[in-house]
Amino acid sequence: MNLCYAERTSSIKASEIRELLKLTEMPDIISFAGGLPAPELFPIEKLESITTRVLREDGRAALQYSTTEGYAPLREIIAKQRMPKARVKATLDNIMITSGSQQGLEFSAKIFINEGDVIICESPSYLGALNAFKAYQPKFVEIPMDDDGMIVTELEKALEENPKAKMIYTIPDFQNPSGKTMSIERRKRVAELAKIYNIPVIEDCPYGELTFEGEQYPSIKSFDEDGYVIYLGTFSKTFCPGLRIGWVCADIEILQKYIIVKQGADLQCSSIAQRETALYMQTYDLDEHIANIRSIYKTRRDVMLDSIEKYFPKDVIFTRPKGGLFTWVELREDLDAAIILKDALEEKVAYVPGSSFYANGDRANHFRLNYSCMNENLTLEGIKRLGSVLKKHY
Amino acid sequence: MNLCYAERTSSIKASEIRELLKLTEMPDIISFAGGLPAPELFPIEKLESITTRVLREDGRAALQYSTTEGYAPLREIIAKQRMPKARVKATLDNIMITSGSQQGLEFSAKIFINEGDVIICESPSYLGALNAFKAYQPKFVEIPMDDDGMIVTELEKALEENPKAKMIYTIPDFQNPSGKTMSIERRKRVAELAKIYNIPVIEDCPYGELTFEGEQYPSIKSFDEDGYVIYLGTFSKTFCPGLRIGWVCADIEILQKYIIVKQGADLQCSSIAQRETALYMQTYDLDEHIANIRSIYKTRRDVMLDSIEKYFPKDVIFTRPKGGLFTWVELREDLDAAIILKDALEEKVAYVPGSSFYANGDRANHFRLNYSCMNENLTLEGIKRLGSVLKKHY
Ligand SMILES: Cc1ncc(COP(=O)(O)O)c(C=O)c1O
Ligand SMILES: Cc1ncc(COP(=O)(O)O)c(C=O)c1O
Repeated sequence: MNLCYAERTSSIKASEIRELLKLTEMPDIISFAGGLPAPELFPIEKLESITTRVLREDGRAALQYSTTEGYAPLREIIAKQRMPKARVKATLDNIMITSGSQQGLEFSAKIFINEGDVIICESPSYLGALNAFKAYQPKFVEIPMDDDGMIVTELEKALEENPKAKMIYTIPDFQNPSGKTMSIERRKRVAELAKIYNIPVIEDCPYGELTFEGEQYPSIKSFDEDGYVIYLGTFSKTFCPGLRIGWVCADIEILQKYIIVKQGADLQCSSIAQRETALYMQTYDLDEHIANIRSIYKTRRDVMLDSIEKYFPKDVIFTRPKGGLFTWVELREDLDAAIILKDALEEKVAYVPGSSFYANGDRANHFRLNYSCMNENLTLEGIKRLGSVLKKHY
Repeated sequence: MNLCYAERTSSIKASEIRELLKLTEMPDIISFAGGLPAPELFPIEKLESITTRVLREDGRAALQYSTTEGYAPLREIIAKQRMPKARVKATLDNIMITSGSQQGLEFSAKIFINEGDVIICESPSYLGALNAFKAYQPKFVEIPMDDDGMIVTELEKALEENPKAKMIYTIPDFQNPSGKTMSIERRKRVAELAKIYNIPVIEDCPYGELTFEGEQYPSIKSFDEDGYVIYLGTFSKTFCPGLRIGWVCADIEILQKYIIVKQGADLQCSSIAQRETALYMQTYDLDEHIANIRSIYKTRRDVMLDSIEKYFPKDVIFTRPKGGLFTWVELREDLDAAIILKDALEEKVAYVPGSSFYANGDRANHFRLNYSCMNENLTLEGIKRLGSVLKKHY
């Protein structure tokens, strides 16, 4: 048997993270490789009582087919309760429910990208997005970042050089993988540039609410008056990923495209998961829950950064993220984090090597560390081990 | 704002059924338009107790991220318990969980279809599949059906005329929309032709288990020794659609492509919904549940067919389905079912006009009737009304 696949299928490959997750799940490995939220914080008992209520009060509808755009009360509460956190005014007509924000990413490429079109993205960027986009055979133009996120003068240059670029993809808050956050000034400018260059911005915001210091920044979409910004939200990091509930918030006309694509893709999200998520937010205080997540992740970040400070070679560079789940480590330019990983695995500690986070895949001296799902003692021990592995190479 | 979308986005349109569902949901319309399973048969109380158990015994994992291919015990029980019903030998390595079989359809096109490639399908066929496929800009070659399903001599002719055709799409059991079933002889022949012409067969089987008379037919995949047949299953019609759990059963090498595409599309299906579905089947007898669905749908089918016999003009042709959810009505060739629908809606009765079930959209004199989610009295009354509408045109 030698079937003839579509061209796009040859250019997509299994995500390194998810393949690695298998390796790093071996017992007694201290793995900083995943991107998992802390499961001990999932509101399991509350969800039990919510689910019981949904099934008793509305069981038939909860198990039946429903509309593609999603359960109206959930869209409503997202518009009224979650979007204002990002300083966005929206109504339920701007919201479509997706199977995680991953689905919003995939749909964005499907809606905007013809083969060969240019996607402008941060360097590095979320590899799950890059892989989803790659199926549509785009060209990537990578924009370097500094401590204030994507460098917008570089973005502007890229827009000038690529006047037909089809979308800008950005993760402005506590970026995966770099942990960096885009400044407010730059957010404003990105919104302006979108209008000037008539190009949509895909603003991917799984971590915005997980800020450890001060207020959540206003989203790029909050500076967007004309609908150029498509905001992707998700409950994966603020509630739980297992229900697979995320959303797209966009201009009504653009959203119509997402709805049509959703219809073809899987008809709709789980009717019951949508009701559970809505009823949870109607019954309990999600903000209080998020405050709890923040404070625990903040402690874990502190332990990780302090341990890095203490145990890593002095000239290793790393991000001091002000929220989110990740820090990003930069090694000396001649080192390859994928090769060092083998040594690390022998010492029973794991991370994700950085090269797959580069759209055009050409930088090897970085890796990503996750601190959200590891207790303080193990974090300390793991970083210590990693430090001695690194010191052998320095 | 005048954004530049991808070409594929201009060629996809909202599904007529789902737009119609909105109209036909107006109070006091007797609607035969939907394709909904009967919600009064959903095992709501059992699901309540299952969900409680999943959350108590395995809550953290049930709400966490998990593997893309799906929850292993669910894949296992599908391989061991559901696939044998279709006479297919499979192991969990052949199974990937999807968000309904709709997602399996979308992935199939994504994996196999380049722009301009030929998809061979039945005429008529499931419009949700046609719409999902259309996003990949294929050409469709339609194969006529008779009472034994797709006419395989015509299929063979099409394969000869289109040696580069990329896939065959078929719904062999109680087809949506025609209600027709492919004979066993023809199933064997389709499997042979797949091998001879080196072309994958997408076998879409949501209704196979819902047989009213005699045994379920062996699937096409049961005659496939070399892995050319990709079987799509779903719990939407045998359990409930609201959880969005379906599956792909395929050769391991082909399945790898589906897993990679799934990863980009939405990472994975709901962890909790997968556990619920598995535990339900481990705890209760799904076959018994299906037997109950069958017997109720059979009664409803009988009432519908008897009423059609009694109230429709004599020369209207219709299918006598031996299972599933639909019958298919053929009007005189000069009549247009979409136009007659307006009269029908005035009489407060609805159906889906047939033209959107034709891949190349050129036949107007058919419509589809659903009998699964309407009680006997309303079915009788609705068909009576429809009969008098039709008689005005005859
Ligand atoms: C930046 C970013 N976007 C999107 C996602 C997808 O998450 P989900 O589909 O669970 O919402 C992730 C997950 O890690 C992510 O880091
Ligand atoms: C023939 C056929 N295939 C696939 C589907 C998709 O169903 P689901 O995604 O709920 O499994 C349907 C739904 O009506 C159908 O009729």
